[in-house]
Amino acid sequence: MNPIKNAPNTTEAENSNRSHDFNDFQQPHRSLLQQLRPAKKDLLTAAQTKIDNKTKPVGSLGRMETLAVQLCLIQEDLNPVIRRKSMFVFAGDHGVVEEGVSAYPSEVTGQMVKNFLEGGAAINVLCRHGGIDLRVVDMGVATEIKSHPLLMEKKIRKGTRNFARTPAMTTQEALRALEAGMEAFLAEYQRNPIDIVGLGDMGIGNTTTATAVICAACGVDPLDVTGRGTGIDDAALTHKAEVIQRALRLHDPDPKNGFDILQKVGGLEIAGIAGAALAAAAKKTVVVLDGVISTAGGLIAYLLHPHVRDYVISGHRSVEPAQQAALSFMKLSPLVDLNMRLGEGTGAALAIHLADAAAKIMQEMASFEDAGVSREMA
Amino acid sequence: MNPIKNAPNTTEAENSNRSHDFNDFQQPHRSLLQQLRPAKKDLLTAAQTKIDNKTKPVGSLGRMETLAVQLCLIQEDLNPVIRRKSMFVFAGDHGVVEEGVSAYPSEVTGQMVKNFLEGGAAINVLCRHGGIDLRVVDMGVATEIKSHPLLMEKKIRKGTRNFARTPAMTTQEALRALEAGMEAFLAEYQRNPIDIVGLGDMGIGNTTTATAVICAACGVDPLDVTGRGTGIDDAALTHKAEVIQRALRLHDPDPKNGFDILQKVGGLEIAGIAGAALAAAAKKTVVVLDGVISTAGGLIAYLLHPHVRDYVISGHRSVEPAQQAALSFMKLSPLVDLNMRLGEGTGAALAIHLADAAAKIMQEMASFEDAGVSREMA
Repeated sequence: MNPIKNAPNTTEAENSNRSHDFNDFQQPHRSLLQQLRPAKKDLLTAAQTKIDNKTKPVGSLGRMETLAVQLCLIQEDLNPVIRRKSMFVFAGDHGVVEEGVSAYPSEVTGQMVKNFLEGGAAINVLCRHGGIDLRVVDMGVATEIKSHPLLMEKKIRKGTRNFARTPAMTTQEALRALEAGMEAFLAEYQRNPIDIVGLGDMGIGNTTTATAVICAACGVDPLDVTGRGTGIDDAALTHKAEVIQRALRLHDPDPKNGFDILQKVGGLEIAGIAGAALAAAAKKTVVVLDGVISTAGGLIAYLLHPHVRDYVISGHRSVEPAQQAALSFMKLSPLVDLNMRLGEGTGAALAIHLADAAAKIMQEMASFEDAGVSREMA
Repeated sequence: MNPIKNAPNTTEAENSNRSHDFNDFQQPHRSLLQQLRPAKKDLLTAAQTKIDNKTKPVGSLGRMETLAVQLCLIQEDLNPVIRRKSMFVFAGDHGVVEEGVSAYPSEVTGQMVKNFLEGGAAINVLCRHGGIDLRVVDMGVATEIKSHPLLMEKKIRKGTRNFARTPAMTTQEALRALEAGMEAFLAEYQRNPIDIVGLGDMGIGNTTTATAVICAACGVDPLDVTGRGTGIDDAALTHKAEVIQRALRLHDPDPKNGFDILQKVGGLEIAGIAGAALAAAAKKTVVVLDGVISTAGGLIAYLLHPHVRDYVISGHRSVEPAQQAALSFMKLSPLVDLNMRLGEGTGAALAIHLADAAAKIMQEMASFEDAGVSREMA
């Protein structure tokens, strides 16, 4: 399933069309992106030594240890701390739903946004459970959404165009959507700094869009990685893969150009996620991706600015096969694997608890010296 | 790796040597065990229907859904709730350490117990993080442990005998150790009811013991499933597997008789874990197993009383290969897989957060009807 054709080395991807794209951003967004720097790798040895001196066999906390070290590099501190945890659910509709790719009708996007605002969805439960502040961003829901304290209104248009026939967005719309994602994150960050952010999605039809984005960037075949989304049957699955395949042939997006892919076969919520990931990384906030849609957004951000990768954690393994192609491309591996495929940020919410635990392990655990515990025998 | 020879059907295991063993328990322990009943399976359809009506595609929360349903059956309530979370770390030393099977000296057991009592170990960090009450039970540490409010003193003897030469415990010691585990749980439960309990371990040498227990019960070969524990090299690994193999030939424990296995090649902390699992299940408390030692304890409990299985969750997948043999035998699959191999209850502590999340999903999420969300198209 995994012929990753286009994996860029960082420098290559970095130099591709990035500067061009960044010049098109408005001034405040451009200067925010200039703040995005690689994480502080010169702390690596000190962080590794610190975790190795904790009262446990070396490496015995597995992924929790690499996570703890990553947090040190991001926060530039050997005592990383997760104070404020945030979750953004970016919502948008998809013109491609006209092609019969989803088990649910488009109006469910708006209905679910209402459910989020009323507190009844899975992501509400998991954010309350995890002490995570939730905001919902209307990037392009087809129906009207009434104002609400939890809602951020960033509607670019009422759903994308049907990319089976025409580019999903104009270049201006794609640019505005990326900027809107950055603005959404930044507005919350400025209200109160955010240490870790989960990026979730809502949008009927968006596994089709995310799969198209991932296939375009990673050079994988839609017939190999298209999944059942909310639950379509075999016939609909084949049809969905063919719709994606035809769209990629029609638009022929440049695999190295995240902006080109986004505009031609992307989604408004995917743009919001990409923008938020870029803004968060610029502010040294840990970014937790969720399932296949969130990962597609992370992938767009990565193509636009590869250093974003240093700030990213993959929250969970989705049932959707395209996610793995994107994760391999970015060399990420998911924290949680619970056979989930809901999106909304639900996997990211569970992973945030683990990241917070990793920070506390680094900060609070005693060393062999502190505790007077004997070391391994020679 | 996985030739499970002895998987009992429930009735068979149930009828084996159980009644004999239970008659040897003191009266209060015997009557506690009589309270252990299968979970309320007649709620299965109602619980499944309830989770299927939540605002999400059917099955899209994966393992979280099966967990939510299990909690309903255990609590006999379609609105399961996790109020009090507890963790017990059972500690004991192992005579078999004389054979050179561990990378650490025996005195580390007592030193780590002191670390637990002072709050500096990984399990302390994770229990604070997860809102979990921690108690440490001295089942048989070789050194003296000073009294402490977090400590429960149940020392049966200063470490087991070296089972490479002689049975690890007398039948009286094994019986008392099981009872002590039950008493430890019950004392905390009576102070304040416990909804979910993690069962952790500390004991230098105890991956050797746990592997012996699992091989005896599941009919697997020590050469196939012995792991590196705290971190031994290749030569020591082969030696460790051979020590276990010889001990099993020497004592020839009855694979269906958990008590016989425990007494001949078990550990005092493993007995404590088994006893606590039985007592917790009798009180309808959810039992979360940790790594290979905790799972060996769960396995002893299962052989003694198969209905305990209904109350058990496997918290995490350990790096130790014997754990998988025990999990397959009990038909359990672990929630978290983070490449961890520390024990102490660390994997269980992380899993408790997930179980609590699952309970809240069942209780708090809106149904399609509540939220006015359209269902899947026909």
